[in-house]
Parts: sequence; C-alpha cells; structure tokens
Amino acid sequence: MDKVRFAVCGTGGRGSGLTRAVLAKFDDVEIVGLADPYVDKAETLRETLKDKISNVPAVYGDHIKMFDELKPDAVLVSTSWATHLKVAMDAMRRGIAVALEVGGAYSIEDCYELVRVYEETKTPLMFMENCCYDKDELIGLNMARKGLLGEIVYCHGAYAHDLREEVSYGDVKRHYRQKEYMNRNCDNYPTHELGPIAKILGINRGNRMVSLVSMSSKARGLHEYIMNREDLSHLKDVEFKQGDVVQTLIKCENGEMISIKLDTTLPRYYSREFTLRGTKGMLCQESDMVLLDGKYTEYGTPYKTIKEYGGNIDSFSEYMPKIWSEVTPEILKAGHGGMDYFVFRAFVDAFKKGEEMPIDVYDAASWMVISCLSEQSIKNNGQSVEIPDFTNGKYKERPIKDVVSFD
Amino acid sequence: MDKVRFAVCGTGGRGSGLTRAVLAKFDDVEIVGLADPYVDKAETLRETLKDKISNVPAVYGDHIKMFDELKPDAVLVSTSWATHLKVAMDAMRRGIAVALEVGGAYSIEDCYELVRVYEETKTPLMFMENCCYDKDELIGLNMARKGLLGEIVYCHGAYAHDLREEVSYGDVKRHYRQKEYMNRNCDNYPTHELGPIAKILGINRGNRMVSLVSMSSKARGLHEYIMNREDLSHLKDVEFKQGDVVQTLIKCENGEMISIKLDTTLPRYYSREFTLRGTKGMLCQESDMVLLDGKYTEYGTPYKTIKEYGGNIDSFSEYMPKIWSEVTPEILKAGHGGMDYFVFRAFVDAFKKGEEMPIDVYDAASWMVISCLSEQSIKNNGQSVEIPDFTNGKYKERPIKDVVSFD
Repeated sequence: MDKVRFAVCGTGGRGSGLTRAVLAKFDDVEIVGLADPYVDKAETLRETLKDKISNVPAVYGDHIKMFDELKPDAVLVSTSWATHLKVAMDAMRRGIAVALEVGGAYSIEDCYELVRVYEETKTPLMFMENCCYDKDELIGLNMARKGLLGEIVYCHGAYAHDLREEVSYGDVKRHYRQKEYMNRNCDNYPTHELGPIAKILGINRGNRMVSLVSMSSKARGLHEYIMNREDLSHLKDVEFKQGDVVQTLIKCENGEMISIKLDTTLPRYYSREFTLRGTKGMLCQESDMVLLDGKYTEYGTPYKTIKEYGGNIDSFSEYMPKIWSEVTPEILKAGHGGMDYFVFRAFVDAFKKGEEMPIDVYDAASWMVISCLSEQSIKNNGQSVEIPDFTNGKYKERPIKDVVSFD
Repeated sequence: MDKVRFAVCGTGGRGSGLTRAVLAKFDDVEIVGLADPYVDKAETLRETLKDKISNVPAVYGDHIKMFDELKPDAVLVSTSWATHLKVAMDAMRRGIAVALEVGGAYSIEDCYELVRVYEETKTPLMFMENCCYDKDELIGLNMARKGLLGEIVYCHGAYAHDLREEVSYGDVKRHYRQKEYMNRNCDNYPTHELGPIAKILGINRGNRMVSLVSMSSKARGLHEYIMNREDLSHLKDVEFKQGDVVQTLIKCENGEMISIKLDTTLPRYYSREFTLRGTKGMLCQESDMVLLDGKYTEYGTPYKTIKEYGGNIDSFSEYMPKIWSEVTPEILKAGHGGMDYFVFRAFVDAFKKGEEMPIDVYDAASWMVISCLSEQSIKNNGQSVEIPDFTNGKYKERPIKDVVSFD
C-alpha cells in the first residue's frame, strides 16, 4: 500500500486543525474527501489545504455519500460528541478504518453498539486519545512498567481547562459544547486524563473498572462570566446544568482507585493533574515532581517545601520513549505540542501493517461510558454505578499493549 | 483571672509536645496536672518541664481523680482518638473548659453525645484544629472573605503525610495509630484539611454538609514497607485494613463540593493540597499558585507552564492576617511552624474573655463524624451517606465566625 486514502468527517475546529497540521504532513496519507453537514466549513478547510497538499479533496455534506463514492481506506471521525459514534459505525460497516476523535458517551447502549459493530466487521478502529502520547504520561507509563513506582495503588487526573470562552461563543461559532453545558451535568470529557491512566493500570487487559461514584458542584462559572461580557447578553438568562467541577471516583477490579475531575468553567490554568501513586514512588504533574522511596531520608513534615524531595518530572527524562527523545521542531508544531502527530502516526502505522490498534474499541467504550455513568451517579446523589465489561470477560486473558515501545 | 489553671490529659507525643512547646510558654497559663493511664509518660513529661516552668504539676493515672482533686479551669485533651471524647465530656460535666485535640469519630452517636453534653453544661469547648491557623489557609480565608475569589464553588484538601514509620512502630512506642490501620478502613483523620475549608464555606453557619461518598484504594503501602525492614518482621503477616488512599466527596447545602483525601501509607511529601476554587479566582497549594480572573489574558493551553499564570501564594502575603505578619521566631518554633501557638492562644484568649470559641462543638462534631460516615460509605461500595446536622437547624441563623480577625 502506497498511500492511505483518508477521508475526514467533521471539519470544525478539531477536524480542520488535525487535517491541516497532521494528516496533510504525512507523506503516506492522501486526503481524498471532506464531509460536514455545514458544507461551508468543509469548503473553507479545502481552501486552506491548497498550499499544503497537491490534490483537491472532494467536499460532501453527507458522509454516507462520501464513503460510498470515494471508498476511502480510512476516515478521521471528528464530528460532534453526539454524532461521532454513528458516523464511526457507518464507516466500519463499509470496511473503512476509523480514527475516532474523543468525547464522552450518552448511553451505555451506544458503547455496546460500537463494540458489536467492531466485533461483527473487524474493521480497525482506534480511539485517538492524544494524551496517551504526551511526554509526562509516557514517562509515567515507562517508570510504572520498569517497576520504579512499585505496585500502583492510586491514580488521579483531570481535564482542567478554562473553556468559558469556547462554551459562551458556542452558538456564534456553531460549537456544540454550549448545548452540552446547558442540558447535561456529568463528566462530559473524561478520556484525556482517564486514557493514560487506564493504559497504565491495564484496563481491559488483566484489569477492569468495576464501579464509580460521581459528584458535581453547583454551576456558577459560566453565568458569572457571561454577566461580565456585554457581547454575551443574549445568554444572561440561560441556566447551565453542567456543574463547574465534577469529580468521579472509580474502583478497579485489582483494587486500584482512579480519581478524575472535569473542571472547565472556572478561572484556572490548564492541567491534566496526572498523578501516579505506587508503593515505591509517585509522579505528580501538579507539583511537577517524581519522588522515589529511599531517595529521601525522612518522611515529609509541613515545614519542608515540596521541592526538597525528589526532582521535577523533566529530570527523569531518561524514561522518555524514543518518540519524545527524538522529537523534531516540526512534530512539536503539529498540534498540541506533538501528541497529535504521535497518535495519528500510530494509527497510520498500525493500519498499514495490519496490526492491532494500540487504543482499541474496548478502550473507547470503557473510557467513553464514564460520561453517562457519571451522569447517572450525579442524578442519584452520588449513587454507586456499575461499569460494564465491554470485553465480555476477555479482559482476563488479553495481554498488556502499550501505546509505544520502550525498548 | 490571673492565670488559667491548665491540666493535660494524654501525655503521648502530641500532648507532651504541646505542653512543652506551647502551654509552658504562656505567661497566663499554669500547668497544674498531667494525667495518663501510662503514668510513666506523664512522669517523663513532668521531668522535661522542670527547666520550663516554676511549679511541679501533679501526675495522675486517672483523669477523673485529677479533675476532682485539682479542679483545673481548663484541660487539654490529647488522649487517643478512641478515648478523647469521653475524657472531654468528663471534663465538661465538671465545668472544666476543654481544648480538644483532633481526630476522627467512631460513631455518629459519639458526636451527638458531645453536642448534648455541651448544650446541657455550656462548658466551653474548642476543637484544636491547628491547620485553621496556618498561613496558606488564612490567606485563602481572607481572600475569600474579601471576595477576590468570587463565589466559592469547589474546595479540595488532603492529609497527605507519609506515616509508614509511625504506624509500623506503633506497638513499640505504644502509639494507637497502628491498631487503627489494622482494624478500620476510612478517612481516619479528616479535620486538618476539612476544618479550614469548612470555616471558609460557613459550615454550621449558614451552610452545612449534607451528604458524602467515599472510596478506598487497596492497602499495599504498609506491608511493602514492613517487608523491607528487618526490624519489623513481627508485622510481616499483618493484614492492614486501611486503604492507602481514601477519597471522600462532600456535598454542601449551598451547592459547593468538598473533596478530601487521606493519604498516609505510600511514599510522598507532606501536603494538605489546600485548594479553593471560585468564580473569580483560585488558590492551590499543590501548584503553589493564586490565580485571579482578568489578571491573565488568555485561557490556559497545555503548552504554557503553570507558573506563567498568576503568582505563588507567598506573593499574596498582603492577605495574611496580623498574627502571621507579626509572627516571631519563638512562635515559629512553638510547634508545627506557629499554628499550634496560634490555636492555643485563641483558646486561652476566648476562655479568659468568656467569648464564644472560634472552633466550637458543632464544628468538632460535624468534622469528626466524616470518619465514621466514610467508613460506612466504603463498606457499602461508595454508597451516598447523609451527614447529620448537629446544630439541629440552628446553622441557618448562626452568623459567620472566623478564627482570626482581618481588620
């Protein structure tokens, strides 16, 4: 196979960015078609691709028509959270390999259906969780695999990103996030932090998530933001259902606890708060620290600063995988500081070689389902909710598969 | 009243330390008696007090006998978590004002009984939560009161302290923590982080905690620590029930969420992870950052480091209360970096003036009860548990009372 013939479904901010910054740069990818119900968006993307690629992709309003006419090898599905599973399944049923952009699910059934369609068609699907490929997360994964942290007992992560502007301007920019924040209350975007942690803990590969509880704070951030912006006065009477902070505690079969947090409508800096805690050491993004047991002589007291123990994460760069130690300036510029490049490279490589996808349909289903389960738990005052086993027992036998090799 | 005649019940590490480092330094306190069922501990304390105070306190094995013979004005109750409420009530029933050291409760009924005895006797009781007086917590309280953080929506804190050595040596040093870790699984020590947050949110004063969910990780840290220490081989077959990390989510009547975490048996640095999140700003001890909305021009992206926003907490020292801006080297040396001094000064001052205690019996009951409620929730797979209102409705009318004045 010379070039992978790629289609793109969903040419909003994310789809356009990925197509321009990543797919257009791959020598072994040809972008053959762009589909979006907002056809003007697809046309704009085609325009901005002119100086980046030699061919002119076809533009469609209907993805099914595009699939049937162009018969692409693969498709990037970057449509809205509400539609992307449907589009992905339409592709899989036609044998078109799917690179599925992330988001949370609306129902358990949607996740089961995705798994069933995969199992029936065996069409490759990769869940494009770019954060699995970021530097700190991979250093943590490698340190965990090398045993430096001992037995991992607790992990924490967050999607902590001030999205007040994006949500407020949703109607103007036809961004669906606004409606999500008006109509639902849940951890609507759990996979950026959960994905890397789930890979480290071997979820769906010897381990699984068994139950969760979820709680939400009140919703105040968006309203106050809107009241301070004259240009947003049309939103001043909107009642947003989405709590400002949603925290979810997940119990794993092998006894670990995972804590995740959605935190997107209050003033804050960006962080994924990536944290691994083991019997021999810890890694914590929030304090930028790796601490290995035995490397410090006394246990902490309140009167020593954090920095007097251990070192910052970068000082453990010997545990970076090759993709990061050999990263080029061009890759760093290719979207979200490199991780977009790596996650798409992994998809194209696995597809061309016919290999198993490093983040597969079971990962997709079990990570995305957290959204609708957290919604249930919040609605029922923090009730504990069972997490389905989408592998149907196969997790017990499935071997660990890391997103990169550390050889 | 010239000098407050003080007795001490419980002369272990904490009681001895406070007596020597704090009470012995107060000109307006006379230490008249020391009681401990381990009489040798009380005698040792008396010895080490010889060069610090001019009188010789009487030593007792039985605190009741001490109360009835010495009739002290006040008593520091620093006995074990299992006994301190009983001792406190014995004192209150005799009109002896109580400075109650912290710890979690074993039952809701114990907490109700403490409240009932207070309401019947009106004997002053203060819950000696020193962390309410530490610098970061007071800067946060002041910033919250001044409105700089906007409406507070979410708070987080932790008791994150590597106690593996203390727990392991419990039997040798007659420290009760070891048995706690063998026999229970809960957030056994919630008040260091919860106390300052509860004061900020006006818990029992216009607000209250209504329900919680709690989850525990597996217990691996202590066993692994013990297996690596030859001198601890007598503990190698012990199965500790206490999970390494216990996380608890608390819902407040006014819509705020509080997240607290017990984290004491894995390698780590000390932190209380004190975090306040409001509609106009945040304070976070873990990243050592205060961030005020409007002080930064764009919302975060993953590619800016945390330090590019806002400033560290110390750079907001204009919000320190007077007790901290005027702190002396002697106070800083007086136990836990000053906060022990301040909390006892507050008790003695309020007692002498006959004023309301700044941390009262309702605070004590509602903060301590979290331990046994978290135990219930963990036992029942994260079930949501109601939190009693120990004020019996009075919280709706009770005005805010801060632990220090910011005038």
